Amino acid sequence: MSSSERLIYLPLGGAGEVGMNAYVYGYGRPGKERYLLVDLGVTFPDMDGTPGVDLIFPDMAWLIERRDRLDGIVITHGHEDHIGALGHFWNELRVPVYCRRFTGALAARKMEEHGADFNAIEIVQPYPAMTKAGPFKFSMVPLSHSIPESSGVLIETPAGRIMHSGDFKLDGSPVVGEAFDAEMFDGIAKKGIKVLTCDSTNVGVNHPGRSESTVGPAITDLVKGASGMVVATTFASNVARVKTLAEAGVAAGRSVCLLGRAMQRMVATAKETGVLTDFPNTVPSEEAVQIPRENLMLIVTGSQGERRAASAQLSRGKYLGLKLAQGDMFLFSSKTIPGNERGVLRIVNAYSEMGVDVVDDSSGDYHVSGHANGPDLQAFRELMHPEMVVPMHGEHRMLRKHAEQAQASGTPSIIAVNGTMVDLTGPVPEVAEYIETGRVYLDGAVKVGAMDGIVRSRLKMAMNGHVLVTLILENDEPLGEPWAEISGLAEVGRSNAPLAEVIEADVDQFLGRAGDATLADDDKIEEQIHRIVRQACSKEIGKKPEVTVVTSRLT
Amino acid sequence: MSSSERLIYLPLGGAGEVGMNAYVYGYGRPGKERYLLVDLGVTFPDMDGTPGVDLIFPDMAWLIERRDRLDGIVITHGHEDHIGALGHFWNELRVPVYCRRFTGALAARKMEEHGADFNAIEIVQPYPAMTKAGPFKFSMVPLSHSIPESSGVLIETPAGRIMHSGDFKLDGSPVVGEAFDAEMFDGIAKKGIKVLTCDSTNVGVNHPGRSESTVGPAITDLVKGASGMVVATTFASNVARVKTLAEAGVAAGRSVCLLGRAMQRMVATAKETGVLTDFPNTVPSEEAVQIPRENLMLIVTGSQGERRAASAQLSRGKYLGLKLAQGDMFLFSSKTIPGNERGVLRIVNAYSEMGVDVVDDSSGDYHVSGHANGPDLQAFRELMHPEMVVPMHGEHRMLRKHAEQAQASGTPSIIAVNGTMVDLTGPVPEVAEYIETGRVYLDGAVKVGAMDGIVRSRLKMAMNGHVLVTLILENDEPLGEPWAEISGLAEVGRSNAPLAEVIEADVDQFLGRAGDATLADDDKIEEQIHRIVRQACSKEIGKKPEVTVVTSRLT
Repeated sequence: MSSSERLIYLPLGGAGEVGMNAYVYGYGRPGKERYLLVDLGVTFPDMDGTPGVDLIFPDMAWLIERRDRLDGIVITHGHEDHIGALGHFWNELRVPVYCRRFTGALAARKMEEHGADFNAIEIVQPYPAMTKAGPFKFSMVPLSHSIPESSGVLIETPAGRIMHSGDFKLDGSPVVGEAFDAEMFDGIAKKGIKVLTCDSTNVGVNHPGRSESTVGPAITDLVKGASGMVVATTFASNVARVKTLAEAGVAAGRSVCLLGRAMQRMVATAKETGVLTDFPNTVPSEEAVQIPRENLMLIVTGSQGERRAASAQLSRGKYLGLKLAQGDMFLFSSKTIPGNERGVLRIVNAYSEMGVDVVDDSSGDYHVSGHANGPDLQAFRELMHPEMVVPMHGEHRMLRKHAEQAQASGTPSIIAVNGTMVDLTGPVPEVAEYIETGRVYLDGAVKVGAMDGIVRSRLKMAMNGHVLVTLILENDEPLGEPWAEISGLAEVGRSNAPLAEVIEADVDQFLGRAGDATLADDDKIEEQIHRIVRQACSKEIGKKPEVTVVTSRLT
Repeated sequence: MSSSERLIYLPLGGAGEVGMNAYVYGYGRPGKERYLLVDLGVTFPDMDGTPGVDLIFPDMAWLIERRDRLDGIVITHGHEDHIGALGHFWNELRVPVYCRRFTGALAARKMEEHGADFNAIEIVQPYPAMTKAGPFKFSMVPLSHSIPESSGVLIETPAGRIMHSGDFKLDGSPVVGEAFDAEMFDGIAKKGIKVLTCDSTNVGVNHPGRSESTVGPAITDLVKGASGMVVATTFASNVARVKTLAEAGVAAGRSVCLLGRAMQRMVATAKETGVLTDFPNTVPSEEAVQIPRENLMLIVTGSQGERRAASAQLSRGKYLGLKLAQGDMFLFSSKTIPGNERGVLRIVNAYSEMGVDVVDDSSGDYHVSGHANGPDLQAFRELMHPEMVVPMHGEHRMLRKHAEQAQASGTPSIIAVNGTMVDLTGPVPEVAEYIETGRVYLDGAVKVGAMDGIVRSRLKMAMNGHVLVTLILENDEPLGEPWAEISGLAEVGRSNAPLAEVIEADVDQFLGRAGDATLADDDKIEEQIHRIVRQACSKEIGKKPEVTVVTSRLT
């Protein structure tokens, strides 16, 4: 390795937040590096800041500008926050996409949906198989998580070896997929790990994580003890959990029915790709309606309270002929992601009104996390004994805690949020430069920049309402009266006159008094009418709305 | 008591939700009852459903129509969800407002702010003092909660005695205010309680609640162990906690400074009304800036992440000359109310970026709830041995669990959500009728009905954006070209032409082809243009916006 070459790490998404993972590694002379992108995920919008937005992407402009130096995209696993933006950006990147088989099946569908060339997907075998991409050689190293075939990426570069963990936990018996293989990782570590880039989401949890296999007995007991219909929800992609739930149903002598498109599709994909075997027989919903409720178990989508998922549909009444009733049980074999509390509680209360018993994960018996907790991260780091740790995937507080944990045990670390290009070449990680990054919204069918003001203008209308004023001028003289139309505002205010009429009268009065110079100038008219409308609304209803003025001129 | 008279209970708010408590009791012949209202609170808006709304009230129309039969309003305590709507509705009710002294001081300010006559407030002494209001005699019975002077209401009627708990916990050493007095309640119960109307919010917590006094030692240890500045937040109205925090600061040899208007005002009110004594000396912020950080403790507003509160201001930088830095500590001596997670995490991450250590209540050491848990409710019910229990204040799932708990121990109960008029006259509670209830929004300065569609129309603009089309017709013929103005939508779509121009061209084409009958009919024009705009936007940007069409006609 020439002393002028360097190894860099640049998170474009996922560092400083939970969601939209996108991590760039680069190797070469500064400004001439070849790149490898690990993951290309989305994050989800909310009413607070992104109403009407469909998806949120990392801003990939930096990498798109340098795509001639990008040698490939590696996808660690099939969760939306790691894979969801692939179809939306592939046409702008056009490089091979490397992943394992199950992830590849999910990736292919995503790419096909968005007109990307799914032939770009190259299915790779897990460690010890290695794949070459530019100056990098990499290998997918099985690490369990809450979706099959989740993998870390071992990246070999002339400057040293990187272990990029992806999302992971240490699970000796994950129900579906490969168990954590400490010996294999010990073997990897023996050849020397320069950098451990590592999941941080659960660093704040102080007890060791529990195995996926521990929830089976408790769920089975719960289902066996139920007298009415049992309905359980979890993330569809948590195939191991879906299997555990289905087996619990069978063990309780129940027929099992999968409800929700994602649930059926995910189980089908897992079977097709060979990651899921011995899944119990299920019945379709048409058959399920004929089965006595005490002999039936539904496994449904919608653990986060999503309005259109099966769990929410069932909470509103009949869904595909199935209806819950007094004495039935609904199990959340999941945790509520922060921000989704209201949607989940809406469902819980709807079930309460039906007399359905809702069981959630508050006991800790029916759900375990897919992420490594604080002590697990410590153990994994000790096993890998890297020269340095770069905490990734997590809010700032998590990256910080993770870096502190590493430093406390003598391993150099760094807090590198999105846009921080880190030079990994030397003995400690060092900031090389800061890149401008951000978010891009998928709004309907188009991508808009988070800072473009488009969504901000919608938020303002949502908060303040909207007033439209139209007027016609003929030879710079008002023709007829101005017209006001209000949206999202009370129709009548303090004076008890219709608000639109109050606005029209105020604008009319202004036009009657305005001088020739004002009437000849659209900008001046607009500025004045803005002010008048906001004053009138403030006085009448105590709000200052957004205002649009349309001046039509006839000559 | 004539057999034709009845005792009723009607929740107008708070039953089926946490927030906006408003409970009506009635006694008399059906349709001629005299009423007593207990509490008149608000609930808070959110971006999900009520963007731009200032406050949410229970719809009081039913009671306002019958205000000639209302004998008084009793306020149990000064939390916004029990007192917040008083100033907004008093002018429509105009009856005496009964409460204890501290609550009265808060109520008076609220009423004054909204032009209500605060002379209507009648300060009453606690039990055993009784007050007469119509056919009712009532007494405020001290029960601790997370605000001083919280009280249950013992209501004596010719049909029997009601114990209305208000929000409460069983606390033998509440730091500020009266300790729970089991003997006194035993005495009350001995004379017979017909109905226990009871707080349900914490019914799902399965361990007994902890006393307010238990957090002091842990907080004191924490503050003593801190090396930089210590900043702590809690609800300002939790005067006992504020005192505990201040005493911890003093015990650690620190000067204490209260930041945030609500914090200063609440402590001042508590001192003035005599409920708070021996509060440590504090320093104003102008002095605090001169004190070395290791000798300073701030107690600040904003435990729920409110953007304008002191905690959020400090997380964004300097506030009143004070600024946090690496090595300082921020303590949430509070829990995050569901729905406020994002705002709180925003602050936590901002502090993480500053290098400030954030301590939250996850250990359970630095915060206790103000509500009775499941076992406490059981104990209180056993102490009161009422003939029946009516669960109040809680989401449906909480009311249901509470009713089940009562029934399981042999006490008749009922799930009565807002609008359910319950007849309490007989041996078991029975639904008398259902009253139409709902929510009213304070939107700026005006009250609008939740179902009026005003806020819904704002939500639609937030989700879908807005397109305005104006056109001028002269003698039913288009004059010039139509004009389109877009708000909250991408300016350019799939065709790479400006969206507004695409819309204008499509509308122009329609106008060119439209027959005389269409052009003579504003409704038809509007309907067609709506359709055309939504089609154009759907094709160009994949969104179907809200559309306003303004047609001006010249003759």
